[in-house]
Amino acid sequence: MIKIGVDAMGGDYAPEATVKGAILALEKVGSDSRIVLFGDERKINSVLSSEGCPADRFDIVATTEVIEMGDHPAKAFQAKADSSITVGFGYLAKGAVDGFASAGSTGAMMVGSMYAVKPIEGVIRPAISSLIPTVTGHPALLLDVGLNVDCKPEVLEQYGLIGSIYAEAVLGIEKPRVAVLNIGEEETKGNVQTKAAYELLKADGRINFVGNIEASYLFSAKVADVIVCDGFVGNTVLKMAEGLYRINKALGCSNAFWDAMNYESVGGTPVLGVNAPVVIGHGCSSPEAIKSMILSTGQVIRAGLTEKLQRAFKN
Amino acid sequence: MIKIGVDAMGGDYAPEATVKGAILALEKVGSDSRIVLFGDERKINSVLSSEGCPADRFDIVATTEVIEMGDHPAKAFQAKADSSITVGFGYLAKGAVDGFASAGSTGAMMVGSMYAVKPIEGVIRPAISSLIPTVTGHPALLLDVGLNVDCKPEVLEQYGLIGSIYAEAVLGIEKPRVAVLNIGEEETKGNVQTKAAYELLKADGRINFVGNIEASYLFSAKVADVIVCDGFVGNTVLKMAEGLYRINKALGCSNAFWDAMNYESVGGTPVLGVNAPVVIGHGCSSPEAIKSMILSTGQVIRAGLTEKLQRAFKN
Repeated sequence: MIKIGVDAMGGDYAPEATVKGAILALEKVGSDSRIVLFGDERKINSVLSSEGCPADRFDIVATTEVIEMGDHPAKAFQAKADSSITVGFGYLAKGAVDGFASAGSTGAMMVGSMYAVKPIEGVIRPAISSLIPTVTGHPALLLDVGLNVDCKPEVLEQYGLIGSIYAEAVLGIEKPRVAVLNIGEEETKGNVQTKAAYELLKADGRINFVGNIEASYLFSAKVADVIVCDGFVGNTVLKMAEGLYRINKALGCSNAFWDAMNYESVGGTPVLGVNAPVVIGHGCSSPEAIKSMILSTGQVIRAGLTEKLQRAFKN
Repeated sequence: MIKIGVDAMGGDYAPEATVKGAILALEKVGSDSRIVLFGDERKINSVLSSEGCPADRFDIVATTEVIEMGDHPAKAFQAKADSSITVGFGYLAKGAVDGFASAGSTGAMMVGSMYAVKPIEGVIRPAISSLIPTVTGHPALLLDVGLNVDCKPEVLEQYGLIGSIYAEAVLGIEKPRVAVLNIGEEETKGNVQTKAAYELLKADGRINFVGNIEASYLFSAKVADVIVCDGFVGNTVLKMAEGLYRINKALGCSNAFWDAMNYESVGGTPVLGVNAPVVIGHGCSSPEAIKSMILSTGQVIRAGLTEKLQRAFKN
């Protein structure tokens, strides 16, 4: 029985959207799974009741506080000890749930990841990753997309390995091809950071390194399965894609490729390189997005990703 | 009489595309302008003849060598002293043409910019810039998009001033609003570089600084007229936009916004912060793109941009 922890109070439309999303996830999450909702018990039960869903379909852990978007993440994580996020991470750290997901305060989710769950031994800096769609239909994994904004080259090398293991374990890709997001194809191209990362990745026998990939080819060709970049660059790529997705939608262009850019289908952003599965959902998550976030969390748990990463980085 | 120098041998489809583009430009370039074509005289005349255009509509400077895409830019710039690019920059440096544009070797164009024309005194690092379309129809200027990939914060501050003067002089925007491309809105967001740049720009009385802009809002709202970023980030943004433009086109989505992303209408990339107008065209430029490139060059010459930048950076 795997237990998927969900922050019922996280996100702009919580708890209605989160509980509805959890109900939607029930059909697909597998009979060996149990969704554990953390939050205001009365409000949770109220939504379940309106939706005609028996409360016993879920485990509920009653919490009385909420970390708000305006709160200082680290201070609130400590001060609001009975918040859905802080309690959720407490359960995760002691193994009472197997994974934890929230569309709430990203800052608080990162505090919990770094201080409650902690980085895997040997991992210099964890990352948050994003699946990006390509026109071939096969997604590629991009990391880091915003957790670490001044990456040393050694960290980018580690992202290559972390991404590689994720792609194998969770996406089922054999010998994933790893590339560096760069401004040119040639080995000599790039800034100080990417040139150094290139050399480290090239020399790393654990990684199937295929060289540089330019941003023009991120979505159009299946050049690489895992693309590593500094968190500043990755976050810029992600936000630019979001902005163009919205513009495209407003302009009436709709098709499978752009639909895959829609965060609702993406399923949340896994935090990679910490000692348990953590998934961060988009703040404005709809029930559909919450459902995807929960299913992703289950997927990461089942893939045994954490154990695989821990083994890879031992000594 | 302004003289616009054009590399007739530059680009994948030269000299046919370049000469045809020059012919197209004739109608719009203004009766006080003279286009000066640098290249193989016989080939240039041959294209003019096929197009039924009298040779005396242009000045022609005969050159016998061409810097190829595979050449080492700096070595070739020196070794091929009679190449269209090297000779063109010679004319520009001594004032025999008022601007110079080429869709040829970008590396050679940058070598010429830095060593023949040279940075304006007081400018730490020149930049290449790009006009980005927005849904409101008013373009914004993004710099640097690839000349300088490890920008110090002081350089980003200078880009704010350079971009500001360009926006006023060439785009006719009063008190242009300058923003830093960043991963969050708040002053405290970003990496070491952008946080330091924010403070410098905020304190700079010559610049109408409006704060940070996230990549999600680059195209969607008129938040800023000039957006500064490190050349690595800017180049990534540019290439990603190009890639998505191509995908969109292939998927059949066509509208004014995406059309404006088409490099053919953009008119080339000005090199900003050097002692004379230099414009770099896209390698695969069509006649239409070459025409835009030539007209842009004329625009920059007429705006007196170089003199304005020189004044601003004096002492």
